[in-house]
Amino acid sequence: VSREGIFVNRSLALEKIKCFGFDMDYTLAMYKSPDYEELAFALLLEHLVAIGYPPEILYDPTFPTRGLVFDALYGNLLKVDSHGNLLVCAHGFRFLKGAEILHYYPNKFIQRDDMKRFHILNTLFNLTEAHLYACLVDFFTNCSRYVNCDTGYKHGNLFMSFRSMFQDVREAMDHVHLSGCLKEKTLENLEKYVVKDPRVPLLLSRMKEVGKVFLATNSDYTYTDAIMSYLFDFSNEDKADVPRRPWRSYFDLIVVDTRKPLFFAEGTVLRQVDTDTGKLRIGTYTGPLQHCAVYSGGSSDVVCDLLGVKGKDILYMGDHIFGDILKSKKRQGWRTFLVVPELARELQVWTEKSGEQCWAGDADFTMHLDSGSSERPDISSIKRRIQKVTHEMDMCYGKMGSLFRCGSRQTLFANQLMRYADLYAASFINFLYYPFSYLFRAPPVLMAHESTVEHSHRDSGDAGTALPPWLAQHGDPHQQVGGRSAGAEGHGHPAMLTPLGSCAH
Amino acid sequence: VSREGIFVNRSLALEKIKCFGFDMDYTLAMYKSPDYEELAFALLLEHLVAIGYPPEILYDPTFPTRGLVFDALYGNLLKVDSHGNLLVCAHGFRFLKGAEILHYYPNKFIQRDDMKRFHILNTLFNLTEAHLYACLVDFFTNCSRYVNCDTGYKHGNLFMSFRSMFQDVREAMDHVHLSGCLKEKTLENLEKYVVKDPRVPLLLSRMKEVGKVFLATNSDYTYTDAIMSYLFDFSNEDKADVPRRPWRSYFDLIVVDTRKPLFFAEGTVLRQVDTDTGKLRIGTYTGPLQHCAVYSGGSSDVVCDLLGVKGKDILYMGDHIFGDILKSKKRQGWRTFLVVPELARELQVWTEKSGEQCWAGDADFTMHLDSGSSERPDISSIKRRIQKVTHEMDMCYGKMGSLFRCGSRQTLFANQLMRYADLYAASFINFLYYPFSYLFRAPPVLMAHESTVEHSHRDSGDAGTALPPWLAQHGDPHQQVGGRSAGAEGHGHPAMLTPLGSCAH
Amino acid sequence: VSREGIFVNRSLALEKIKCFGFDMDYTLAMYKSPDYEELAFALLLEHLVAIGYPPEILYDPTFPTRGLVFDALYGNLLKVDSHGNLLVCAHGFRFLKGAEILHYYPNKFIQRDDMKRFHILNTLFNLTEAHLYACLVDFFTNCSRYVNCDTGYKHGNLFMSFRSMFQDVREAMDHVHLSGCLKEKTLENLEKYVVKDPRVPLLLSRMKEVGKVFLATNSDYTYTDAIMSYLFDFSNEDKADVPRRPWRSYFDLIVVDTRKPLFFAEGTVLRQVDTDTGKLRIGTYTGPLQHCAVYSGGSSDVVCDLLGVKGKDILYMGDHIFGDILKSKKRQGWRTFLVVPELARELQVWTEKSGEQCWAGDADFTMHLDSGSSERPDISSIKRRIQKVTHEMDMCYGKMGSLFRCGSRQTLFANQLMRYADLYAASFINFLYYPFSYLFRAPPVLMAHESTVEHSHRDSGDAGTALPPWLAQHGDPHQQVGGRSAGAEGHGHPAMLTPLGSCAH
Amino acid sequence: VSREGIFVNRSLALEKIKCFGFDMDYTLAMYKSPDYEELAFALLLEHLVAIGYPPEILYDPTFPTRGLVFDALYGNLLKVDSHGNLLVCAHGFRFLKGAEILHYYPNKFIQRDDMKRFHILNTLFNLTEAHLYACLVDFFTNCSRYVNCDTGYKHGNLFMSFRSMFQDVREAMDHVHLSGCLKEKTLENLEKYVVKDPRVPLLLSRMKEVGKVFLATNSDYTYTDAIMSYLFDFSNEDKADVPRRPWRSYFDLIVVDTRKPLFFAEGTVLRQVDTDTGKLRIGTYTGPLQHCAVYSGGSSDVVCDLLGVKGKDILYMGDHIFGDILKSKKRQGWRTFLVVPELARELQVWTEKSGEQCWAGDADFTMHLDSGSSERPDISSIKRRIQKVTHEMDMCYGKMGSLFRCGSRQTLFANQLMRYADLYAASFINFLYYPFSYLFRAPPVLMAHESTVEHSHRDSGDAGTALPPWLAQHGDPHQQVGGRSAGAEGHGHPAMLTPLGSCAH
Repeated sequence: VSREGIFVNRSLALEKIKCFGFDMDYTLAMYKSPDYEELAFALLLEHLVAIGYPPEILYDPTFPTRGLVFDALYGNLLKVDSHGNLLVCAHGFRFLKGAEILHYYPNKFIQRDDMKRFHILNTLFNLTEAHLYACLVDFFTNCSRYVNCDTGYKHGNLFMSFRSMFQDVREAMDHVHLSGCLKEKTLENLEKYVVKDPRVPLLLSRMKEVGKVFLATNSDYTYTDAIMSYLFDFSNEDKADVPRRPWRSYFDLIVVDTRKPLFFAEGTVLRQVDTDTGKLRIGTYTGPLQHCAVYSGGSSDVVCDLLGVKGKDILYMGDHIFGDILKSKKRQGWRTFLVVPELARELQVWTEKSGEQCWAGDADFTMHLDSGSSERPDISSIKRRIQKVTHEMDMCYGKMGSLFRCGSRQTLFANQLMRYADLYAASFINFLYYPFSYLFRAPPVLMAHESTVEHSHRDSGDAGTALPPWLAQHGDPHQQVGGRSAGAEGHGHPAMLTPLGSCAH
Repeated sequence: VSREGIFVNRSLALEKIKCFGFDMDYTLAMYKSPDYEELAFALLLEHLVAIGYPPEILYDPTFPTRGLVFDALYGNLLKVDSHGNLLVCAHGFRFLKGAEILHYYPNKFIQRDDMKRFHILNTLFNLTEAHLYACLVDFFTNCSRYVNCDTGYKHGNLFMSFRSMFQDVREAMDHVHLSGCLKEKTLENLEKYVVKDPRVPLLLSRMKEVGKVFLATNSDYTYTDAIMSYLFDFSNEDKADVPRRPWRSYFDLIVVDTRKPLFFAEGTVLRQVDTDTGKLRIGTYTGPLQHCAVYSGGSSDVVCDLLGVKGKDILYMGDHIFGDILKSKKRQGWRTFLVVPELARELQVWTEKSGEQCWAGDADFTMHLDSGSSERPDISSIKRRIQKVTHEMDMCYGKMGSLFRCGSRQTLFANQLMRYADLYAASFINFLYYPFSYLFRAPPVLMAHESTVEHSHRDSGDAGTALPPWLAQHGDPHQQVGGRSAGAEGHGHPAMLTPLGSCAH
Repeated sequence: VSREGIFVNRSLALEKIKCFGFDMDYTLAMYKSPDYEELAFALLLEHLVAIGYPPEILYDPTFPTRGLVFDALYGNLLKVDSHGNLLVCAHGFRFLKGAEILHYYPNKFIQRDDMKRFHILNTLFNLTEAHLYACLVDFFTNCSRYVNCDTGYKHGNLFMSFRSMFQDVREAMDHVHLSGCLKEKTLENLEKYVVKDPRVPLLLSRMKEVGKVFLATNSDYTYTDAIMSYLFDFSNEDKADVPRRPWRSYFDLIVVDTRKPLFFAEGTVLRQVDTDTGKLRIGTYTGPLQHCAVYSGGSSDVVCDLLGVKGKDILYMGDHIFGDILKSKKRQGWRTFLVVPELARELQVWTEKSGEQCWAGDADFTMHLDSGSSERPDISSIKRRIQKVTHEMDMCYGKMGSLFRCGSRQTLFANQLMRYADLYAASFINFLYYPFSYLFRAPPVLMAHESTVEHSHRDSGDAGTALPPWLAQHGDPHQQVGGRSAGAEGHGHPAMLTPLGSCAH
Repeated sequence: VSREGIFVNRSLALEKIKCFGFDMDYTLAMYKSPDYEELAFALLLEHLVAIGYPPEILYDPTFPTRGLVFDALYGNLLKVDSHGNLLVCAHGFRFLKGAEILHYYPNKFIQRDDMKRFHILNTLFNLTEAHLYACLVDFFTNCSRYVNCDTGYKHGNLFMSFRSMFQDVREAMDHVHLSGCLKEKTLENLEKYVVKDPRVPLLLSRMKEVGKVFLATNSDYTYTDAIMSYLFDFSNEDKADVPRRPWRSYFDLIVVDTRKPLFFAEGTVLRQVDTDTGKLRIGTYTGPLQHCAVYSGGSSDVVCDLLGVKGKDILYMGDHIFGDILKSKKRQGWRTFLVVPELARELQVWTEKSGEQCWAGDADFTMHLDSGSSERPDISSIKRRIQKVTHEMDMCYGKMGSLFRCGSRQTLFANQLMRYADLYAASFINFLYYPFSYLFRAPPVLMAHESTVEHSHRDSGDAGTALPPWLAQHGDPHQQVGGRSAGAEGHGHPAMLTPLGSCAH
């Protein structure tokens, strides 16, 4: 069930949405994992080998997780929370332990705004990149020809810094995307690389009945046309007599070459695409919206103008937390839907492993102490147990753990998802299971002080129970319903001791 | 009880804190409201009248709320959520309604990064400023000599733009703070303006026993010395025979003129203050920490060096969400405690009015629909009811509603508090009621998809089992004990309709 | 004669100027040197002593030159050319020699865009500041209590960096200007500090007859009114029966509080000043220009609008190369006139010492060589002689040499003056000696390749022909009439050797 | 003679230069004009036609001049002086006249720092681009299908803004350079496109005898190797028995992929190039300088380190005023030599047309007037004559006039050349005619006030002549020798009238 669910960070009444916007790559067009990643990895490696890297590196699909940070100074892959506190730290495929981590990061903290050093790998395209860093670091670290240094490797007169390795990989990435070789290979074998799902045209035709639908992709028209034709081509298979409906007819507006995130700021010139030749027409289109016309460039403002809608009327669906979601929300006030393919697997693990229970801590015990007390209960054994359970849980998700958390602590990715995506799901196709009158309702987020209040009208109810008040609070089934209650045990009765758990250090 | 509570956004083990840092104004030294605000208001007005403003304006303590945004283009005071969506909009003391709001803000949204237009009034010192904007706009709007325009007022050949009014008030603010007139008046009548509490020296002496204690204030030494002497002077009152303990002896390090937030970045030169004369010594102090010495300037790095601690060892307590809390957290990884004096009143209203229940919505009713359905249940009457209840609740907090929320939606201030303050309370003095071995424990924040999972092993039924208490807590399938559960009803069974509530539009 | 001259960098037809603009301080109001500088120095020192500096420092008026650069890292005062090459380097009152200079500046070059380290002291107000740096460095360097280090002084546990000394002086400067103490003292003894010249009202009344005249000063109205009243008050002295003409009647527009250079960019709100009370009227003035009205704030655009002129119609006279001249020229295309009081003295030395001849080098001797030659003539003795002459010439201007040059090399100040000031003179009063139909004509600047061409038609010999005078001027093959001829000997015949002179290293 | 001359802006003693640096394109490798420009034009046009531009456009080699500014708002090509004052303004191939110019540029002035609107076309590669703008604007303006608007053209529903045209051309430029198609075509016919000159290896071998020689080019190794092999391959032609000397042996250091101007700032990682395969070796080279080794990337600091020289020891020769010359001078203090191929033609015109005389103005006539006079001599007829002569002179250089000036006023390009290039010439090969002991000597630049002083020792000499003082000044053959004398007539005797000439408006 959950796999078909859509999850809510901020309430959204679907009937108020006048316009559905889509990114293409990894949103409408879901690439098949790990085939597509393997293809990208192979092309990247080919380019790197061409500039002198060792060809021995192999693709191992189990390692990477999205949302990691690459430290170009020390070559580590870091999992961090939204404040820059380190959660996990890996050097190649080896995980660093406490003392090692303190050697590189004395405060277990990174200043994320040092953009020349720390690089966030948030997109699905970054997955392969993250993996490559791990593979390269692993290879050189274990290769006897190279001497390991803090900031790179030495080999005779050569010094290969992690920074130069980073630059090489980034340039290889650019090459693979700009040269078109990845797109070419993908188009050569669409069945292998792209998921085809008859529900896509079904859902889009329903959406077009209740509102406007647009596509805004950074890809060029030729690639877009090939991918979309493949995705929407079902007529021949099922009913030979039904005329094939062209993919462009599912959209009110199609914009390619959007150059998001620039698209959400000043944008570029809007051109019309000649759909016969795939070439751009010179000049900016200024007329009214034309049926089935395709445009290149433009900006989010232009989209609103052409479609006659305001930012809040639009629900935009994309997979890129920064380029699609954060920017459309922050700059334009659009409603946002983040596609997170990993959710399917994450939900499975969470459900099987009983999620929260694995790290939710242990029994609290109460002592009547205040700041004048000197007793210090020993909690080390409990702590060790929690750490063990947390680690076991993490390993179920993969070597780097969950995309969203490390034990009880959330990742930067999870934090950004919660801040900027109004809705999220493993796929946009899940909308198929909701009526267009649906109200996606986020339970009110309770602040710590709000969730711990004893409401006067309940006081009488609890009286007489043998429970201490802080337990009684939780006994009330009305209390926490739908509320994110922070700090329930966080303070409770102020003179209550909860000496353990998943402390933030 | 709650008034003495400390609330937790991120878990913190007090026994790991090696160092307690304090801001002075509004943290150690709590100013008495509304006397102090009235004094500031009077001084501001005096300055404005001197440059030609009408003297008729009167102070009305009921209006202002912290955390509002002043729109210097249209002269409105805005209450916004963290994304820039408008929650409340006031022009002077008049609240704008739907159509009016759309006239000025077509998307009901502001681009907060337009720093020349939108000014966030987050500090307690800003309270008076916010009030002044409201008073001025109210006066000119209702004064028959002035013609109302969209961006200001016309009077003969004069045009008074809201922008110029903003500039005048800002300059008056600078004058009142830089000229020292506010400080002077405060010192003339300390009893009237500053809260004196014997628990302050008690708590600080306890803190100094278990760790290091420092003061880092933007005020100068003369003012700091006067205020702190007053705050810590209790010896004579109680026991005439006990020698008076000087306030400086409560601290390991005292730094004045800190120029936060610059202090948390590159900082300034560290000087020693001659405590006999109050004057600075030239040159930078480079020696070891001296007992009871007072310094001027410096930076957070210098503090760590002098005290021999790392960022995570420090718990810093302040009232300024940006200058004290956000910056110390973001740049230095310090642990943070935000003083929010309004909490006392907010908690009272919340408790009396049963908080969440007032706006938490109503019963959900389920219909089996999907995206192919065309039924649209009528929910308008329920919506109206919710709006009414929300407004009534808001009015209990004051004209602009709560500092933290508007109905079910949180303010920008609440959002920043939750992101950057590890702990918060109405006063730092609440630490008195917690032992130094206390673990402030934030319940894990559940993401929307996590809180809706039905864990397989519990399906059979927990009832009656001898589960340990922490599992038992979860025994109630309706509740999210200790977890901030987003989206409980957010999707539930995907084909379930929850057609009402506090939708984000 | 030259003292009354106006010098031309770019041709300007005075009859095309529709509008004369003036700065006040150091332009209309010339402060008496060294009395005014001594006053400023005394006030600065008073403030510094108050924060712990030694009171022994004395004012020595012979040292400072404008346009120096203070290196806040090493405490040196540098004289540099427009590219950042060092010309002179002083530590306190001591001049560094070759090897010492190379120790601090290995390439004898500074990267001027390092604004945190290098501070240009270009204004007349900076003169006192430059002097103070020299005095302080001199004092501490020679004071036995302090140990000299590369970046400051050590004294017990204190380290006084040059950077902190710089900060202290800057803050003292701000204090002296913002607190109003300098203005107060000046007004107490106007006769001592401000030059009074009957030609000022005479010239301004003539200017107002042929065009518009405005004042744009950063000073406030009260100070402006006092200074200007003094400057224009001549009626009583000469003819008791002539009614006194108020100073404001000499101007079409008076703007105070201009906040240049901001004034030349977005500016601030334009207010009207109540000339009876000296206070600002609230609101922005939007009506037509009122006779004798005084305004506060605004911007250069507002000035153009109110006076109905375009940038090129305005000749603006000021003393601040950056705030007045560079910005008005660069942002607004105004015509510019720089007041350089030092010119009087510079011209005197230049004339007496025969200027150019002192360092222009010696006879060239020709040898027929090319890149294949290996002969190297010995020119060291000639070089030494040139250095000696250059130094002697420099010393005539003062310890740091001329404001404009060091030997044959021009200073950054001279370069900026030539780039941004269309005209310049020791005083704006020199306009009195030019008719308003005057054409200030800059000779065309010849580029190096242009000045060395032998024009074919002149080869035959111009002597004795009936050429018009402007051609006749060029009849003399040795001279470059009216042309800045670069490179005359620079290459000459390419195979000609000019092995000596003022080489740029 | 002049064609072989090297011109001097700042004195430079060649014997002090320890290191000669070279750019490759347009410096060592001179491309043949107009063949190479025609090739680039054809490739650009091919790309533009592919995106919908009309193919009718033809290349006309007479039009373009370097150093123009393209106004992307109005589509004009502007010739401006260093302050942004307009000198010439063309729309397509049509020149705008006074009233038209004022319509678009009311103050005849542009704010050059508006980088989104004004684009400087300073490089030789930009020549083709400038031409293309003119051709496109000319075509669309005269094409009856398009309606002319202020900011572009309308055609049915399409609006083609000049800004979009600019973007298209820029992208076509990028394509032509990044795709390698221009390089490919060039290598296919080296004889046609690249000048081969036996003096190149001769000069470089001489330079290598007296100092170090390095190459720093933005081109990649493959292209560099092909071009350089061609340039240095003379052995077979002359003497079949002499072993061919490889081009790399002429250099101490070869750096490709330099990414200037980044190279002069932080630069990139230094790699070694495998000269057998042309591929990069991974890692950064850290060993000592290897003979004949080739590197990729790096920075100017790395070059200094590897060669063991300081900035002032290096003379760097390039053709790019910004990337090669300004940056190496400003950031690193290098000595600079600018290659300006146009100099050959410019010198020819200048010499034939008697240069300066054409626009140097007319006879001055003296009147004894001051600011009190009201006479205004009529100078309009003289002005018209000057304008006519100036225009005729300009036309000799080409439609847009000289690269360096418009009448007596210098272009932005000339100004930057004078500021940043120590030396300049039509080709670096001119060094062949100078011995390595040569002193390139710039005559001291006299400031306006310096060139007009009557030196005391000459006073007696002039007395009693019948000449007016301003002519007597010029009569002295010593006075202007080698000095750029600004303002000779600029003021002369202040009461002298020079009512006409090349005034800056």
